[in-house]
Amino acid sequence: MASVSHTHTLVLLRHGQSEWNLENRFTGWWDIGLTDEGQAEACAAAAALLDAGITPDVVHTSLLRRAIQTANTTLDEMGLGWLPVRRHWRLNERHYGALTGLNKTEMAEQHGAEQVHLWRRSYDVPPPPMPSGHPFDVSSDPRYGGLGASAVPRGECLADVVRRMLPYWHDGITEDLRAGATVLVAAHGNSLRALVKHLDGIGDAEIAGLNIPTGVPLVYELDADLAIATHCAVEDRYLR
Amino acid sequence: MASVSHTHTLVLLRHGQSEWNLENRFTGWWDIGLTDEGQAEACAAAAALLDAGITPDVVHTSLLRRAIQTANTTLDEMGLGWLPVRRHWRLNERHYGALTGLNKTEMAEQHGAEQVHLWRRSYDVPPPPMPSGHPFDVSSDPRYGGLGASAVPRGECLADVVRRMLPYWHDGITEDLRAGATVLVAAHGNSLRALVKHLDGIGDAEIAGLNIPTGVPLVYELDADLAIATHCAVEDRYLR
Repeated sequence: MASVSHTHTLVLLRHGQSEWNLENRFTGWWDIGLTDEGQAEACAAAAALLDAGITPDVVHTSLLRRAIQTANTTLDEMGLGWLPVRRHWRLNERHYGALTGLNKTEMAEQHGAEQVHLWRRSYDVPPPPMPSGHPFDVSSDPRYGGLGASAVPRGECLADVVRRMLPYWHDGITEDLRAGATVLVAAHGNSLRALVKHLDGIGDAEIAGLNIPTGVPLVYELDADLAIATHCAVEDRYLR
Repeated sequence: MASVSHTHTLVLLRHGQSEWNLENRFTGWWDIGLTDEGQAEACAAAAALLDAGITPDVVHTSLLRRAIQTANTTLDEMGLGWLPVRRHWRLNERHYGALTGLNKTEMAEQHGAEQVHLWRRSYDVPPPPMPSGHPFDVSSDPRYGGLGASAVPRGECLADVVRRMLPYWHDGITEDLRAGATVLVAAHGNSLRALVKHLDGIGDAEIAGLNIPTGVPLVYELDADLAIATHCAVEDRYLR
């Protein structure tokens, strides 16, 4: 295959440890902040980007605090806190429905480890939907006011995340890439898995086995058609 | 006078203590971060806004780290880190020209306290222009790339700040106010004095005596024409 020179740089960054990661609870759309360790992971991501000489021109974040704190800290550490910021709910973490807030160990005791593994790692098995009155229901949060309560997910499988994330890739992120910007996307395990699935053309069965590490920038060089310029394993795209 | 019901809320917030405030140095466009005390001031501003039941819908910041850190911390503390963010160099601090980086005490020894007071507090006496090669010259910083090096100020009096700040008030901030948003502006002593001068109709001589405290939200209720709804002393607009 002929070598294709890349023209666009996209950096994906999964937020670091949050308070609920520490407690091993399903977080989803519940808005939990980073721990000190999570903040340190954001600083380490900044150091890795500086070492690699990668300078973002614009940042996209979800509407969730842990991704926003990650972006703020990483950019502040790089002296790039002044970058333009765009945020969108379509970059939010997978909505875990009725599982939101539950501890994974307790879940396994109640439903069996196999069922929990299926909810976490299958492509198209959604969690039980969040009932109204659930303590971690965010559908009336003002940040989703423009979306309408009926459009806020009540629970998503990864296939649902792919469907609701891709419109923002096509409408929002690629606009900045086409304008020549190096783009940083600070988001979540599942919204980033959805994007990686699209970019690397990973199959429905295979994506379940891909785990994106926290706080490690994942760098894509894209050609003029926004296809990946060099095919390689996802692992080889990490800035470690 | 008949009572006029307000329709728009504007909150101005001057950043708290920076590393160079601590050293009593002229900072201007040099990009210095907050101290821990400055971060605490941003947290206190969040508490004051929460107490007053004022919830911003959008934030505008300068391109300088100390204002951006203030906005990030205040909004994060309020659970509003997800708000849309707009940034503009027109909200930057006054450019102190050749005085940038100098300690105010040393300055007074070299030039006399009266001359320093004139540079700091007069309306239309500019500082000596920053020479090329000055150690704190930011004209080639990428954040001002769109502006062009020739348009970056080399030194400003307050009258210059008024002239370059007001276009962003008219074109940028009022657009959000007219759309019904409560707007938070996180900026600097002189860019905010320029805006207060415009809003309150303060004279050229009087504005010199107005000092905006750091970390204290300054709340304007504006009518449909974006004129102030209730006339009062600036001091009575502070949320303490």
